[in-house]
Amino acid sequence: MSDHIYKKIELVGASATSIEDAVTNALTRAQKTIRNMRWFEVVETRGQIEDGKVNEWQVTVKVGFTLDK
Amino acid sequence: MSDHIYKKIELVGASATSIEDAVTNALTRAQKTIRNMRWFEVVETRGQIEDGKVNEWQVTVKVGFTLDK
Amino acid sequence: MSDHIYKKIELVGASATSIEDAVTNALTRAQKTIRNMRWFEVVETRGQIEDGKVNEWQVTVKVGFTLDK
Amino acid sequence: MSDHIYKKIELVGASATSIEDAVTNALTRAQKTIRNMRWFEVVETRGQIEDGKVNEWQVTVKVGFTLDK
Amino acid sequence: MSDHIYKKIELVGASATSIEDAVTNALTRAQKTIRNMRWFEVVETRGQIEDGKVNEWQVTVKVGFTLDK
Amino acid sequence: MSDHIYKKIELVGASATSIEDAVTNALTRAQKTIRNMRWFEVVETRGQIEDGKVNEWQVTVKVGFTLDK
Amino acid sequence: MSDHIYKKIELVGASATSIEDAVTNALTRAQKTIRNMRWFEVVETRGQIEDGKVNEWQVTVKVGFTLDK
Amino acid sequence: MSDHIYKKIELVGASATSIEDAVTNALTRAQKTIRNMRWFEVVETRGQIEDGKVNEWQVTVKVGFTLDK
Amino acid sequence: MSDHIYKKIELVGASATSIEDAVTNALTRAQKTIRNMRWFEVVETRGQIEDGKVNEWQVTVKVGFTLDK
Amino acid sequence: MSDHIYKKIELVGASATSIEDAVTNALTRAQKTIRNMRWFEVVETRGQIEDGKVNEWQVTVKVGFTLDK
Amino acid sequence: MSDHIYKKIELVGASATSIEDAVTNALTRAQKTIRNMRWFEVVETRGQIEDGKVNEWQVTVKVGFTLDK
Amino acid sequence: MSDHIYKKIELVGASATSIEDAVTNALTRAQKTIRNMRWFEVVETRGQIEDGKVNEWQVTVKVGFTLDK
Repeated sequence: MSDHIYKKIELVGASATSIEDAVTNALTRAQKTIRNMRWFEVVETRGQIEDGKVNEWQVTVKVGFTLDK
Repeated sequence: MSDHIYKKIELVGASATSIEDAVTNALTRAQKTIRNMRWFEVVETRGQIEDGKVNEWQVTVKVGFTLDK
Repeated sequence: MSDHIYKKIELVGASATSIEDAVTNALTRAQKTIRNMRWFEVVETRGQIEDGKVNEWQVTVKVGFTLDK
Repeated sequence: MSDHIYKKIELVGASATSIEDAVTNALTRAQKTIRNMRWFEVVETRGQIEDGKVNEWQVTVKVGFTLDK
Repeated sequence: MSDHIYKKIELVGASATSIEDAVTNALTRAQKTIRNMRWFEVVETRGQIEDGKVNEWQVTVKVGFTLDK
Repeated sequence: MSDHIYKKIELVGASATSIEDAVTNALTRAQKTIRNMRWFEVVETRGQIEDGKVNEWQVTVKVGFTLDK
Repeated sequence: MSDHIYKKIELVGASATSIEDAVTNALTRAQKTIRNMRWFEVVETRGQIEDGKVNEWQVTVKVGFTLDK
Repeated sequence: MSDHIYKKIELVGASATSIEDAVTNALTRAQKTIRNMRWFEVVETRGQIEDGKVNEWQVTVKVGFTLDK
Repeated sequence: MSDHIYKKIELVGASATSIEDAVTNALTRAQKTIRNMRWFEVVETRGQIEDGKVNEWQVTVKVGFTLDK
Repeated sequence: MSDHIYKKIELVGASATSIEDAVTNALTRAQKTIRNMRWFEVVETRGQIEDGKVNEWQVTVKVGFTLDK
Repeated sequence: MSDHIYKKIELVGASATSIEDAVTNALTRAQKTIRNMRWFEVVETRGQIEDGKVNEWQVTVKVGFTLDK
Repeated sequence: MSDHIYKKIELVGASATSIEDAVTNALTRAQKTIRNMRWFEVVETRGQIEDGKVNEWQVTVKVGFTLDK
């Protein structure tokens, strides 16, 4: 049984390819400065259109990570 | 014109690969005991992170199926 | 600095393959009659089930486009 | 398996009689200019009061219809 | 052009018959003490079940009325 | 003072006639297998359209019933 | 007592000055093609930032107007 | 450390000028009969249109005030 | 079978101790002027912090009571 | 890395004492027939009032449990 | 086509004057430590009342800014 | 009259005992690095189950604190 404390931050990842890739890009960037990321929650999916085609998927995620004691 | 009655249940499917695959996994399991599944609605998309990467997509779906008369 | 006015319409795209493909199909159809589409927002993801498998992904999107002055 | 594209519009129907009648009135009017209406979703129910009685039920519906290819 | 001020109160009307009748019952009771009721908004529809049948429809409405200056 | 435990399930009832009738149809079917239904909550009202007319009202309800100890 | 039918559309107005001005700009543009606008509802307020200052307020409104019989 | 009890009421203020002015008008009227108003929360912003222009801003606020012991 | 009419009001109770105590305090105060309170619904839980500790739990409840005929 | 499938059900637990106790009561009852419960989410907190006091806390929880393969 | 990553933070700005001014004050303060702010979204508008008048508008905004690669 | 600016962060506190204790644990941890915490808002309550019992309450709170000028 544990008493962990987590912090959640909100990021927007982008990708020309897919929703999954946009999330992955956000996490890859966050990984540079945040240790112990544990889970994410997708809160919004949108994107930019150019010439009638999706040219960027933009996915907002909340990312939870453990705070050091 | 019909007077069908449906029941909706809530499942969480998981997959290391994609959102679509997580939904498919949930339906495949449900198919074992539920007949006549008709539609699903995605209600939440989240996932687990390990070493800064998504290691499991978790998608909550509501699944509607026809009740026998 | 600009004073653009945008209109948003709501479309439901479908695809047997993926969520991304369903959005793309909606935009491809809208492109026939709407100029200057700029962005989209996913507002609902659901689908039809046949024989326990997803046979159609249905994604509702709001699409924003610039109104001519 | 199909790849239909639908458009959804938002209407407010009114009736002195009932919620169902207000929806029917909205659809009857929409039928004049829209082909292939397929489904509706009730999004708001409200009304006007006069002399302490409901004198108009006002029901907002989203109506989905098939777009021609 | 007017600068009316309105107050909104929340009531729950009940009826053995229908949703419309439950709203009417709430307004009839409110009419005894409130002047100048102008509109209502349905915010919740629920009911009690007895022997597998609806024995009371319960409809929560917000009622707006003009405040005297 | 009691410590009852309730379970809530989600059903979709349909009717060609009215919202109230769609709820009643859902309860009548549920009554076959569920004892002690106590209340319901309407969570969604929608319907199918054919030839510009409502041909089926579809009402989603949550139904609460007492669990035996 | 009337049986008006209304349609609601969604617009995004922009302004460098204020929220009110952004709404006004959206209505002014809509007025060119829509007759009988009756009311609006603000559904989202956001904006663009440049050099740490708001350089554009963007307000999404739903606009309701009477449909001719 | 205090154990204050507050009541919240819902008002709709109107103004031809601005959102802020509509809120102020609601509070000015409420002040006549309510003592100890402490805070407000904007819950809806809408308005009436005449000749393509906003002729009344209507802002719904919840107002919290201290109840005497 | 009954046709009761209920009114719902919104209160904020406070307590230095617990969420339950804050609700109890709100009801104790309301009891002074309202007869026939029947149920409550928690709509918001928040609190004040002093020196890094909760010094007041603030719970917003809607309270339903029977209106005399 | 795992591909677990979970099911979520909705229960209402009651207690004369506290919110926590109401949740515990719901889980204790569910434990009789459900194996492998993993987590819960509180979705609603309400209660019954008698003589101006809370005589029953009623807490609605969604409970997730692992489905056997 | 770009793969930008954004972070969103939540601020509450205050002003004695207007909603717009409260947002501006929040951004001015944030500008001291955050580079590359790009957009904001208003998520809540409320305020303090003193002597029956608004003495502080409090506007909660989410602010999005580009993360350096 | 003041023009304070606040920042809100999102934390998840955990406790084997109670909802209140989980909030307290989150604040105690946050207190190590954040000065001037002023208020919190509970946004989600959930928990882990082991052997049919709650073994960890997990409460998500938004915490507001004053930013230095």
